[in-house]
Amino acid sequence: MARSSMHVILRIEIDKKQITFGEIATSISSTGGDLVAIDVIKEGQSTTVRDITIRVANESEQERIVAAINDLNGVAVRHVSDRTFLVHLGGKIEVKSKLDINNREQLSQVYTPEVARVSQAIDKNPLLAYNLTIKNNAVAVISDGTAVLGLGKIKPEAAMPVMEGKAMLFKRFANINAYPLCLDTTDTEEIIRIIKALAPTFGGINLEDIASPQCFEIEERLKKELDIPVFHDDQHGTAIVVLAGIFNALKIAKKNIVDCKIVVCGIGAAGTAITKMLLNAGAQNIIGVDRNGAINKTTNYTNQTWSWVAEHTNPNNEQGPLSTVIEDADIFIGVSAAGILKVDDVKKMAKDPIVFALANPNPEISPEDASPYVRVMATGRSDYPNQVNNVLCFPGIFRGVLDCRASAINEEMKLAAAVAIASTISEDELNEEYIIPGVFNTQVVEKIREAVIKSAQETGVAKKI
Amino acid sequence: MARSSMHVILRIEIDKKQITFGEIATSISSTGGDLVAIDVIKEGQSTTVRDITIRVANESEQERIVAAINDLNGVAVRHVSDRTFLVHLGGKIEVKSKLDINNREQLSQVYTPEVARVSQAIDKNPLLAYNLTIKNNAVAVISDGTAVLGLGKIKPEAAMPVMEGKAMLFKRFANINAYPLCLDTTDTEEIIRIIKALAPTFGGINLEDIASPQCFEIEERLKKELDIPVFHDDQHGTAIVVLAGIFNALKIAKKNIVDCKIVVCGIGAAGTAITKMLLNAGAQNIIGVDRNGAINKTTNYTNQTWSWVAEHTNPNNEQGPLSTVIEDADIFIGVSAAGILKVDDVKKMAKDPIVFALANPNPEISPEDASPYVRVMATGRSDYPNQVNNVLCFPGIFRGVLDCRASAINEEMKLAAAVAIASTISEDELNEEYIIPGVFNTQVVEKIREAVIKSAQETGVAKKI
Repeated sequence: MARSSMHVILRIEIDKKQITFGEIATSISSTGGDLVAIDVIKEGQSTTVRDITIRVANESEQERIVAAINDLNGVAVRHVSDRTFLVHLGGKIEVKSKLDINNREQLSQVYTPEVARVSQAIDKNPLLAYNLTIKNNAVAVISDGTAVLGLGKIKPEAAMPVMEGKAMLFKRFANINAYPLCLDTTDTEEIIRIIKALAPTFGGINLEDIASPQCFEIEERLKKELDIPVFHDDQHGTAIVVLAGIFNALKIAKKNIVDCKIVVCGIGAAGTAITKMLLNAGAQNIIGVDRNGAINKTTNYTNQTWSWVAEHTNPNNEQGPLSTVIEDADIFIGVSAAGILKVDDVKKMAKDPIVFALANPNPEISPEDASPYVRVMATGRSDYPNQVNNVLCFPGIFRGVLDCRASAINEEMKLAAAVAIASTISEDELNEEYIIPGVFNTQVVEKIREAVIKSAQETGVAKKI
Repeated sequence: MARSSMHVILRIEIDKKQITFGEIATSISSTGGDLVAIDVIKEGQSTTVRDITIRVANESEQERIVAAINDLNGVAVRHVSDRTFLVHLGGKIEVKSKLDINNREQLSQVYTPEVARVSQAIDKNPLLAYNLTIKNNAVAVISDGTAVLGLGKIKPEAAMPVMEGKAMLFKRFANINAYPLCLDTTDTEEIIRIIKALAPTFGGINLEDIASPQCFEIEERLKKELDIPVFHDDQHGTAIVVLAGIFNALKIAKKNIVDCKIVVCGIGAAGTAITKMLLNAGAQNIIGVDRNGAINKTTNYTNQTWSWVAEHTNPNNEQGPLSTVIEDADIFIGVSAAGILKVDDVKKMAKDPIVFALANPNPEISPEDASPYVRVMATGRSDYPNQVNNVLCFPGIFRGVLDCRASAINEEMKLAAAVAIASTISEDELNEEYIIPGVFNTQVVEKIREAVIKSAQETGVAKKI
């Protein structure tokens, strides 16, 4: 993904006796960089430290420039900050007071001694926490760092920028106060205990980037043991947006989900959630495919999830690799790995095939390769049409559950959210390249919110009517 | 504590067939209330719900008015919100983004895909979390709700307004992003595990309102096992401000702490911390007093804290009740209960006695009773001179440790903070009624910060030089 240009800031230490700044500047411009600014950080007798801002065309040019400077005698690059790093300096969120404290009177209302009466009132009736504390609009974004983006397991500190970004999106799209908590443990029972202990402070829990199969156990247990909604976004957020896209794609292909053969490739956290939602939406013939081919009723699986999938899908007990079971499929949904789906596989699919190739950053099949043969295609990427992006779902679904004080996010509510997302595109607008709304579409959050509240009320999980 | 006037909002449900609003208004004014505003909340066929705002003189008048309305036929008070409750509606803090997200470019920098590079950088070098996440300015305010204000053990939800207030103070006085977390567990080991797991997100931990003796074990263990500062404010915050006040009181009484006989009454969390700080400040003759009188070397204590105090204080092994050991004491510090110290006890003290009667809301002896006999007096109350208020300490001490990335708050740093607080009052200003700065004194945070950083550097716990 080439970009037109970006800024990068290099902190360099210069030995003044060995090299002049002019020589360094020459090296930068001859390597293609454009010197924008110089800031002196520390001026010593023999050495000087400077931050130099350079405009570069792309990351590889940046790397060439850094290497070229490091090759010069008497200068060392101490630190490289590009624009993305710069926006992260000091973190991306902050905690603010809603009220000023400028005098004793205000201080005594928000803190001792008067706050004691508020505490006493809540102690008598804990439901008042929804009125008198941040609980009514507070979501914890919790990760153990075991499955962060495409990076896999990273340190909890390293997962924080992602969770902070998520908190920003909660605020930007749904005005929800989300706080990121990255846990220094990967023990399933410990994570469950921690989140249970944290629950009084929050109105909802957004689990994020937790590896499977632990994520299943953690979410299922918390759903049973807590009275606030718990939502593993990597599973259900993805599944809801996928379903929304599928609903609209089927309108274009003029097919009914009940009649479709659907291949889901990659039966991890997202694949399992997608499969369950498809079943709830009425799909009759889903085939899950993983490393060893179609998950079928003949094989015994030690993996609990796969056993579940084997039991509830593949009614014709089809077996074999993806290239076999893809035959006559109406829909392919990939949440697996780059390049898994071949052009020949797409050619074997039924008429007007629908392909959701969601592997990130590189899809199961490139849109360029697939487009001659598919009717509707979606990916996880922003540089192609029809991006499946979780940002479309979680702000609206949490806005809805917080506003009706839902105790859970059940299957009906998830399905309602998917229908709501699909409905933001009118029949007139709907076309092969526009089945999923853009992330900045202003209708999405409100439509999901309304649908989720209605469904929560109908299914009896809304505590506030 | 009578107040001139306050507003209260009553939500009342009226049966229109039984009573008119005029009759209700008459009842309110005849009970002493002043009707300020009426808002219709829900207008039904036979009933109407209204919010009526009334100005009342004090809380007992409020109670009389509510009772009078409830006595009327056809009207019921559904909810009473006074001004303090109103400022708590929806909670007192919020999470905000530092950056706008208004287009795809911004979205991709703060979240996927570009955030991945930031996560990778931190994963390689976790210290970068201090630069690229909120850690550098984030403090967790953590309570289990077991010793909240004077309320004792309350539900974790009920402790939230206090912790939210604390977070507001962190922001107001030191621009620190503090997040309140009230835990639904009182198990010492579980609390330790939870806080250890939460540590990657934060640059410091403020323990709050945790009962003794659990608070000692929790803090000690966390100090050993974490590399970020852990500070139980009820212990050390109180102790630091007390010491600051004592330093200034001794200047007035022209005494040296080394020569003073000091009685500390109430050997719980705060009393123990005060005793330890006094020892570190050079005090030679401290006598701890609890329910059974002076803690001495003759008695065997099962309570670990009391054994420690017995071992390290009371060199003359004085025994007996407070009224005995108070004889010839230069300083009395009470963190116990209302009315414990009698006028006769004060009369027995040495010349120019210093009395810190800190029990809340009612001190060990009232300033009115004590003033004829004491030289310097301090309380925990805002309506007398010399208020010992933790707000004077925690913002500055955390500002200091965050700014130098201290790994701990050690004894030297606490003593430096106390000296810094004392130093905000110049020799010229110092007098019997002004030994402790006011909470809105703008010098306090910066003075503590500087002192704490200097001390952290000298004792080798500052990670950032």
